[in-house]
Amino acid sequence: MTRTVIRGGLVITAAEEGRMDVLVEDGKVAALATPDSALAEGWTADRTIDATGMYVIPGGVDAHTHFDLPFGGTASSDTFETGTRAAAWGGTTTVVDFAVQSRGRSLREGLDTWHAKSQGTCAIDYAFHMIVSDVNEHTLKEMDGLVEEGVTSFKLFMAYPGVFYSDDGQILRAMQRASGNGGLIMMHAENGIAIDVLIEQALARGESDPRHHGEVRKALLEAEATHRAIQLARVAGSPLYVVHVSAEEAVAELARARGMDLPVFGETCPQYLFLSTDNLAEPGFEGAKYVCSTPLRPREHQAALWRGLRTDDLQVVSTDHCPFCFSGQKELGRGDFSKIPNGLPGVENRMDLLHQAVVDGHLSRRRWIEIACAAPARMFGLYPRKGTIAPGADADIVIYDPNARQTLSAETHHMNVDYSAYEGKTVTGRVGTVLSRGELVIERREFVGRAGHGRFTPRATCQYLN
Amino acid sequence: MTRTVIRGGLVITAAEEGRMDVLVEDGKVAALATPDSALAEGWTADRTIDATGMYVIPGGVDAHTHFDLPFGGTASSDTFETGTRAAAWGGTTTVVDFAVQSRGRSLREGLDTWHAKSQGTCAIDYAFHMIVSDVNEHTLKEMDGLVEEGVTSFKLFMAYPGVFYSDDGQILRAMQRASGNGGLIMMHAENGIAIDVLIEQALARGESDPRHHGEVRKALLEAEATHRAIQLARVAGSPLYVVHVSAEEAVAELARARGMDLPVFGETCPQYLFLSTDNLAEPGFEGAKYVCSTPLRPREHQAALWRGLRTDDLQVVSTDHCPFCFSGQKELGRGDFSKIPNGLPGVENRMDLLHQAVVDGHLSRRRWIEIACAAPARMFGLYPRKGTIAPGADADIVIYDPNARQTLSAETHHMNVDYSAYEGKTVTGRVGTVLSRGELVIERREFVGRAGHGRFTPRATCQYLN
Amino acid sequence: MTRTVIRGGLVITAAEEGRMDVLVEDGKVAALATPDSALAEGWTADRTIDATGMYVIPGGVDAHTHFDLPFGGTASSDTFETGTRAAAWGGTTTVVDFAVQSRGRSLREGLDTWHAKSQGTCAIDYAFHMIVSDVNEHTLKEMDGLVEEGVTSFKLFMAYPGVFYSDDGQILRAMQRASGNGGLIMMHAENGIAIDVLIEQALARGESDPRHHGEVRKALLEAEATHRAIQLARVAGSPLYVVHVSAEEAVAELARARGMDLPVFGETCPQYLFLSTDNLAEPGFEGAKYVCSTPLRPREHQAALWRGLRTDDLQVVSTDHCPFCFSGQKELGRGDFSKIPNGLPGVENRMDLLHQAVVDGHLSRRRWIEIACAAPARMFGLYPRKGTIAPGADADIVIYDPNARQTLSAETHHMNVDYSAYEGKTVTGRVGTVLSRGELVIERREFVGRAGHGRFTPRATCQYLN
Amino acid sequence: MTRTVIRGGLVITAAEEGRMDVLVEDGKVAALATPDSALAEGWTADRTIDATGMYVIPGGVDAHTHFDLPFGGTASSDTFETGTRAAAWGGTTTVVDFAVQSRGRSLREGLDTWHAKSQGTCAIDYAFHMIVSDVNEHTLKEMDGLVEEGVTSFKLFMAYPGVFYSDDGQILRAMQRASGNGGLIMMHAENGIAIDVLIEQALARGESDPRHHGEVRKALLEAEATHRAIQLARVAGSPLYVVHVSAEEAVAELARARGMDLPVFGETCPQYLFLSTDNLAEPGFEGAKYVCSTPLRPREHQAALWRGLRTDDLQVVSTDHCPFCFSGQKELGRGDFSKIPNGLPGVENRMDLLHQAVVDGHLSRRRWIEIACAAPARMFGLYPRKGTIAPGADADIVIYDPNARQTLSAETHHMNVDYSAYEGKTVTGRVGTVLSRGELVIERREFVGRAGHGRFTPRATCQYLN
Repeated sequence: MTRTVIRGGLVITAAEEGRMDVLVEDGKVAALATPDSALAEGWTADRTIDATGMYVIPGGVDAHTHFDLPFGGTASSDTFETGTRAAAWGGTTTVVDFAVQSRGRSLREGLDTWHAKSQGTCAIDYAFHMIVSDVNEHTLKEMDGLVEEGVTSFKLFMAYPGVFYSDDGQILRAMQRASGNGGLIMMHAENGIAIDVLIEQALARGESDPRHHGEVRKALLEAEATHRAIQLARVAGSPLYVVHVSAEEAVAELARARGMDLPVFGETCPQYLFLSTDNLAEPGFEGAKYVCSTPLRPREHQAALWRGLRTDDLQVVSTDHCPFCFSGQKELGRGDFSKIPNGLPGVENRMDLLHQAVVDGHLSRRRWIEIACAAPARMFGLYPRKGTIAPGADADIVIYDPNARQTLSAETHHMNVDYSAYEGKTVTGRVGTVLSRGELVIERREFVGRAGHGRFTPRATCQYLN
Repeated sequence: MTRTVIRGGLVITAAEEGRMDVLVEDGKVAALATPDSALAEGWTADRTIDATGMYVIPGGVDAHTHFDLPFGGTASSDTFETGTRAAAWGGTTTVVDFAVQSRGRSLREGLDTWHAKSQGTCAIDYAFHMIVSDVNEHTLKEMDGLVEEGVTSFKLFMAYPGVFYSDDGQILRAMQRASGNGGLIMMHAENGIAIDVLIEQALARGESDPRHHGEVRKALLEAEATHRAIQLARVAGSPLYVVHVSAEEAVAELARARGMDLPVFGETCPQYLFLSTDNLAEPGFEGAKYVCSTPLRPREHQAALWRGLRTDDLQVVSTDHCPFCFSGQKELGRGDFSKIPNGLPGVENRMDLLHQAVVDGHLSRRRWIEIACAAPARMFGLYPRKGTIAPGADADIVIYDPNARQTLSAETHHMNVDYSAYEGKTVTGRVGTVLSRGELVIERREFVGRAGHGRFTPRATCQYLN
Repeated sequence: MTRTVIRGGLVITAAEEGRMDVLVEDGKVAALATPDSALAEGWTADRTIDATGMYVIPGGVDAHTHFDLPFGGTASSDTFETGTRAAAWGGTTTVVDFAVQSRGRSLREGLDTWHAKSQGTCAIDYAFHMIVSDVNEHTLKEMDGLVEEGVTSFKLFMAYPGVFYSDDGQILRAMQRASGNGGLIMMHAENGIAIDVLIEQALARGESDPRHHGEVRKALLEAEATHRAIQLARVAGSPLYVVHVSAEEAVAELARARGMDLPVFGETCPQYLFLSTDNLAEPGFEGAKYVCSTPLRPREHQAALWRGLRTDDLQVVSTDHCPFCFSGQKELGRGDFSKIPNGLPGVENRMDLLHQAVVDGHLSRRRWIEIACAAPARMFGLYPRKGTIAPGADADIVIYDPNARQTLSAETHHMNVDYSAYEGKTVTGRVGTVLSRGELVIERREFVGRAGHGRFTPRATCQYLN
Repeated sequence: MTRTVIRGGLVITAAEEGRMDVLVEDGKVAALATPDSALAEGWTADRTIDATGMYVIPGGVDAHTHFDLPFGGTASSDTFETGTRAAAWGGTTTVVDFAVQSRGRSLREGLDTWHAKSQGTCAIDYAFHMIVSDVNEHTLKEMDGLVEEGVTSFKLFMAYPGVFYSDDGQILRAMQRASGNGGLIMMHAENGIAIDVLIEQALARGESDPRHHGEVRKALLEAEATHRAIQLARVAGSPLYVVHVSAEEAVAELARARGMDLPVFGETCPQYLFLSTDNLAEPGFEGAKYVCSTPLRPREHQAALWRGLRTDDLQVVSTDHCPFCFSGQKELGRGDFSKIPNGLPGVENRMDLLHQAVVDGHLSRRRWIEIACAAPARMFGLYPRKGTIAPGADADIVIYDPNARQTLSAETHHMNVDYSAYEGKTVTGRVGTVLSRGELVIERREFVGRAGHGRFTPRATCQYLN
């Protein structure tokens, strides 16, 4: 039994900010106490971390990653090993990745495959959502079992016809099932049927550059699908979580739903907050680096996303980390934007970029921790084990230096991908030390963790409902 | 050349109300003049109609009828002959019926079939919309030709998968085509894919009565499809006309679109204004009489429809006349509401029911004429030939007695169907005399018209755009 | 008895467009007929006007003028004689001017004063609204009498404390009275109490130029007052007409009210549609020419006004014609924007500027006539005598050349003011000939009318209600 | 130095729920620890409270009380002594009362008076807002000083002309001042000018019963004033806190503002959540017991209030405790509802009624604590000293029995008033033990506190801004 005490820092959670000493015992937070008190000073520990001048924050929870994901004839370039290590470097101590059902196969088989990929390789704790590619009587029944074993959220796609696409009847059935078993339906909300028409027409007109990816995947078609998913959820009586919201008009649909007190939730990602169609239009084939779906939007949409994060019409910022190397992978789409693998790297950058948003005045410090740690943990049934610092919680803790400056770059990042979406961007704030269940993973900016430390973490159902 | 003069009535159009004498020459309105003036008194005519104490109104334009329509293994019970005669009895002098493309066949073939059904049989003028069951390269090209020959509107279905259903890609393509050729897309806006799931589930639960028809076709799924159609139209840059709007939530979507100044239009029908799910729940199998889609809604929705008609968020009241006899036709759905042929009779009742709405204070007199005559004429390119009384217009004129009382009943109506949806309802106002292009069709409540008087009337494109 | 026939023109009313011949007898429209018909050709007349290639439109109704209005120690520079003559030059054949109650005096006395100013001097017909400066038991009772004698609308001010200002209790009482006697409350909707604080503060900071007039009279304070007036009208159960709406946010309040089917109406003016704060900021003291209240807004507000006119959230365009010469009048406010007399000339320019809006694609031709002729006539109880061309209507008719081009300028205009707000602007369309009650006022661009032809015209109550 | 340990309870804060032991030292929370841990078990204390089966919650913060308030010729019946004692009985450990400026006197004088009333008499901690009756140059300057000394919020009235009423110019000036000095403007939002007209008219019609109080103070006039206050705050660039929101339409205005991310906040009170116009209409003069302003609304408004609390469009539930005895005080208004002293007792009932809302499913447990403890503390600059349980916070702690049942009644309550607004209502949940800064005030339902324990607590500025 190791005892660690973290002294002198400013503890920040979603709810509180205060100078406190933190006692960690058996991988869990055992106590919080007023610093410099006789009580706290009386604590003996195997390891003392001096957090003077630092923030002491819950480890980040990234609820949307795709490690080792087959997509378009290739696979995302981070394995669970490289990906979780990079996550730790970036102050994230839990990821929720997506197990994928292959069409015609069972959910179980998909989940087993993902367990096999991740088992024994992760530097930090992990959990799974399940992508349901094929809603039918069998898979509907399987959903109940998965909820029982801690895979409590199910992602469906209104995009990608012929691949992950579910029609509205399948969506309705899955939502009905979720409303019964406590599962949370996660939705990729884009009208893929209409988008595929626009893709075909654009290519026929010779519009093959990456920027056309942004043009055909219209904001109105994201908003449409968002609205549709909400209405279907109302019919089913189920909650809904919309992933990677990027369009102002989609935020408006979420806001409308939340104004009606519906259990509808939204996630956005750093790329939508910091990047734009300007990046997609970078000269040459550079824009391919920024191809993801939903796509980057014109810069004007960013204000609505920041506002949505402040008004709680958006609750979570995840990364949708799904890296493909520019060389050899993104290049598959030269001459045909529709063949560019969809996805960006980002699992390492999220906590820092959002801290920069605090510096820039978009968010308060507590809201930073809420959208990056507490809300994703609550949303996906991990709270209070993850996402906060409180007696009884897992000791997933980051010592964060709010004043350090760093420049983001592929040269220095730890993700297994040959470019950074934020190359050259300077931000204020940097992770110092990271604990996962009380064990050091990053210590004063050295990786001291190990593959296999991270455990699969079964999840309860969504904690925003009840 | 016949000359008719109509003296002493109150001429009401969408825009004006005033005592005027009307001179008809060669089937057209030749002049309007101040009554009792030397000028008007000097008019000589072959026929003089004394309209003292009467309204002199444009003949009604019913933009949504289904005569002789094959549906669910049977056919609607009015032919063009019986249907147009009943229309005339009810003060309607133009109908726009729907030619139907059969799946796998051309639009042309469908249109020819409907020309054959109607040719030489109609008591009043008629025109056609085209139902496109199968959007593909060939039918998209045919649309251009149809616009040229005066079939300028195309109906698509988001309901009835496997029958008339088009997916969102097909809808988008058709809208794009319409945005180029001036055509108007008419939409049956219900999420049929989701509804079919609910039907299957209801039947599996043993819910087979007519009232379940109303329960599975949820208002939210009408609103959803309405919103989706609007967004697709925005993407395509095309106008949109939503047929048979019945749900308050769908009206709200139209209002939202119109507030943005989008070319989005909506139609409702008398059955949604005067009937409700109370009728669908009538004991025994009586509810089958009221089965139509979109379905009747709870009574509370009516206020939103009346309000929408007043605020011009709804522009047109048509009948969606599609009669099936209770005996032998509606009965096909005993034990399975999904097998009840969808549709109600009403072509004869529309003008009277809407006049009753004037009496009840829902609408002004001019708005009555606008939604029943002028707006449908403008919407579908028939104005000012149809829908108004002005020099140069077709002399389609109704002498209407605003004080007569009548009781609606299958015993007295002229539609070829064995029940009335309004059986026993007493209304104030009744058609007296009807002229079609200057010829008498109804004379003091006697039918004096003839099959074959009515002509196919090619239409210009929608006159609300430009 | 003179008979005039107008042949060969395109008659445009709010509702119809068509080639028709118009017969005028005894100052009224006697008949409309198909041109080139035997009937029309048989018409004999004392005077035949050839309107080939021309529009034949109802004379304009300008529902908001201030001739000979005392304001801020001076008086508006057009008398009823010069003002109505200029109106006729601009195609307007009816004005509704504002009689003013002086504080402490009766409505009667104010009305008598305005009758005296106008009697025997007007080139065209005129009517009066009543400005109520002092709502009290006596004036409330007088309102009933004024409605009886055809002064059926009453203007109140939420601005100008100490001058015309009424507090919310007075407004509520006046609205309650109007809801009983059929009167229409017209509202100058700006929060004058708050604005006066901002004026004082601006002047204290040394901000004395004309552009500060626009800055202190904030759009939000127009929207606020608009909302407040609407709520008070709801409490009183009365209709409401908001004058000179200029701010996008105020249009939004009207749209919200109209979406609820409330009897709330809005007017805007050409200056808000064509001018902006850019004009107020013209160098030197030039901006003073554009000082009026509500003030000109930033250019971005114009789109909302045009949209409001299209969606019928705004119904009427009047001029709020209230001219003050730059020299000697506007100059009173040098060094203190709050002393600049408020008002712009425009009675002569309205019909042309709105026709230019047709050319520019903002409005359809029929909507042009509606907002400039028919709607103000209906709104203020003059329909169908004024505002349309129909048998029985006053023969107030303009022969309008849609292709002529003209340049607006103080050098050529007929208003008695030394500048034009539109100096140098070239527009397409020009008045040719103007008839008032069948008599020529302008004949092929010569003034042939006379002071004293114009008559006081008692008005019925608002015709948009019931 | 006393040490208290609270063992075995479920600690609930706005953010967390968990079993924790709490160590209190020197009147503050010194540490939280996992229960049954060696660490926690090692804690020695002077006093151990066994909270097994209980909730351990922060003491309530009631941000709206009126103790010893002169009103309408009488004074509210609770002194600071009786009122704070009753508050403690109800689980509230901090009140923010309103010091009142008398017209013509300084803020300072008013504040001194309230300090004198409260000094040495309170059982729990207290703070002050300042009612500004007279906004002028002098009082505006005084506001800055009051912020410095911890009176950081200022209440203005749009109601009560001639008493507390400020006009829009005064409101604007006060808001401008607040935007500079960090103060928070609190608004009684009712259009008092219009309401006074309606009162006069009602009394003139002989409508003098208590229920007419509810009828004349119309929901639309609350919504109007709410909207107006928001717009004025936007113009001033200041935050706004609207007190005692009762009307659905007012909630809608707040929601609209918050959707725009404006710093606008709203408070409601238990009486609006649990009582209605049905109570005002109780027979005889019983309705007088429920006379307060804003008034109770029809029952249908309650759903909007609950929804607003869930969606965070309303942030705080205070009591607006302002008790007048039925006998001798409320009776002043027999025969004239406008003379009934405005106000209800409630400071003792708030925590219990809101816990009942948890039981009823309106709120989650954490939201209960948020709206009753954390949010008012943050709103008024008391956090984290008050409103939460965390190391460093004041040990204002309530041991709450969630399963006890009690019946509310004047016979058993501790407020100095002869009736209960909730007489006979049975609720689940009851306060057991209450600590204020670590000292027992209520111990197992015995009052063991003392007048004078409670201290004036200077406040920081609003903590929802920045």
